[in-house]
Amino acid sequence: MAPFADRLIEATRKHATPLCVGLDPFADKIPALFGDVRNDAAGTLVKFGTSVIDLAAKHAAVLKPQLGLFEQYGEMGYAAARILTEYAKSAGMLVILDAKRGDIGTTAEGYARATLGPSPGFNADCVTVNPYMGKDTLAPFVAAAQRDAKGVCVLVRTSNPGAGDFQDLQVGGAPLWRRVAEMLAPETQTLMGASGWSGLMAVAGATYPEEARALRDTMPNALFLVPGYGAQGASAGDALAGFVQGPKGREGGVVSSSRAATYSPAAQAAKSLAEWRVATEDAIIRAAGELRDAASA
Amino acid sequence: MAPFADRLIEATRKHATPLCVGLDPFADKIPALFGDVRNDAAGTLVKFGTSVIDLAAKHAAVLKPQLGLFEQYGEMGYAAARILTEYAKSAGMLVILDAKRGDIGTTAEGYARATLGPSPGFNADCVTVNPYMGKDTLAPFVAAAQRDAKGVCVLVRTSNPGAGDFQDLQVGGAPLWRRVAEMLAPETQTLMGASGWSGLMAVAGATYPEEARALRDTMPNALFLVPGYGAQGASAGDALAGFVQGPKGREGGVVSSSRAATYSPAAQAAKSLAEWRVATEDAIIRAAGELRDAASA
Repeated sequence: MAPFADRLIEATRKHATPLCVGLDPFADKIPALFGDVRNDAAGTLVKFGTSVIDLAAKHAAVLKPQLGLFEQYGEMGYAAARILTEYAKSAGMLVILDAKRGDIGTTAEGYARATLGPSPGFNADCVTVNPYMGKDTLAPFVAAAQRDAKGVCVLVRTSNPGAGDFQDLQVGGAPLWRRVAEMLAPETQTLMGASGWSGLMAVAGATYPEEARALRDTMPNALFLVPGYGAQGASAGDALAGFVQGPKGREGGVVSSSRAATYSPAAQAAKSLAEWRVATEDAIIRAAGELRDAASA
Repeated sequence: MAPFADRLIEATRKHATPLCVGLDPFADKIPALFGDVRNDAAGTLVKFGTSVIDLAAKHAAVLKPQLGLFEQYGEMGYAAARILTEYAKSAGMLVILDAKRGDIGTTAEGYARATLGPSPGFNADCVTVNPYMGKDTLAPFVAAAQRDAKGVCVLVRTSNPGAGDFQDLQVGGAPLWRRVAEMLAPETQTLMGASGWSGLMAVAGATYPEEARALRDTMPNALFLVPGYGAQGASAGDALAGFVQGPKGREGGVVSSSRAATYSPAAQAAKSLAEWRVATEDAIIRAAGELRDAASA
């Protein structure tokens, strides 16, 4: 199998958009058309998720299930997330499992098996990880990724309002997130693809476009996962701040959209599954198109 | 229900030891007496876990299931961890779920429900969380803890060799972990018990006793969760570096032991469940006693 970075960049070129559809199963937003998630979590989550994936796979390269929102339904939610990861891969999508795991030694190996490993693992293409405990947090994930041509996505500069509490603390004249990026930069060589992009990805929040540009200077080869586009207030242009010119427009990662793509007002108001499908496909096409336009501008 | 901090400190006084038994289901260490975890994950994990808990509950106040090592068995492992949490609570233990979650907003709320919330959540007494994304990572956990008299345990200074990669970076003349502790210190007021201890706990690795003392100065009321005792090389004395004199010896948190307590050489060599029980209870008594002696020295 080709390195994850090459598969990701090729798939975004094919779809001509860096859109990554976020799958966030909010209990109060999943339309009743799919069932009652509080009474039948597994059934409702799988029905909603497969319906989103059927549409997302037509217009976007990547799916990002938000594991915390599945876990709130217990092991049935956990199982549904695993089933949907497999379903999305069968539909031709790449899956970045948004698990934000972070631990050390044998426990990190456990999480790496759980997320990137084969059944009973998720067998996801890539997983998000938290670097706070140090580089030995990342090693087991990187080793698993190397073995199976997969990716690891490290939280560097997140998109939330409180991101700066610790990430912006000044360490010898630069913010902490830059120091994290500097320590990671040499590691990008290990998951490098023929495309020149690395599967050692970095989270680069769309709400901080200046930082995304600086992060690109520090990690020129890292693919970025950009959260915060849409619902968190960043524009398509902001979201692409860390992208660079490629053969088919600006490229360098994926931009996630969850609420705007999967819970549009029209989809929320739909009276039938057919109406929901039209509304949701419209919203996904719109998000894909906005990002496509921004990337070719 | 009494605040978590009071319940924890009272239980450690009752058992006269700060021992916290770590439940780490390593595939290559669970004796075959309990089944084959690779072929029957749920059955084997529950049998092993309940057997450990039956013994641990006699000699220690707290159980710490390591969720990453359960998740490596998929949703069956996740379910087993949830069942064992309930079992340990029924046996009178307090459960600190070692999940090291860290996310923001609605996803953090999801994780808070998943770990501290009632079924289908774990309903654990306390959960470990990662602060890297900022204070808004912690808020939903603290809110859930306040609601149900529970605790939240923040990774501040971990015990692993790479802990210093980021935690030791100097921020205005002090290491990052101290800045994290300083930002958390005022928050300890929210989960304060009548004992004067707070259920906003901090991880203070036993492998860095000097740092544990400094952390105690910064967070005088926070209960500590101390990993790294035993297998990671720290002595009982090192493990108690951040403890202070209480009415019944030094106190101020719990010290976790997993490998030494639950996978002793004698337990690994046991030929029957009866032999395994004797060996494991011996090991738990030994760990509890070493910490008891250190606390009263």
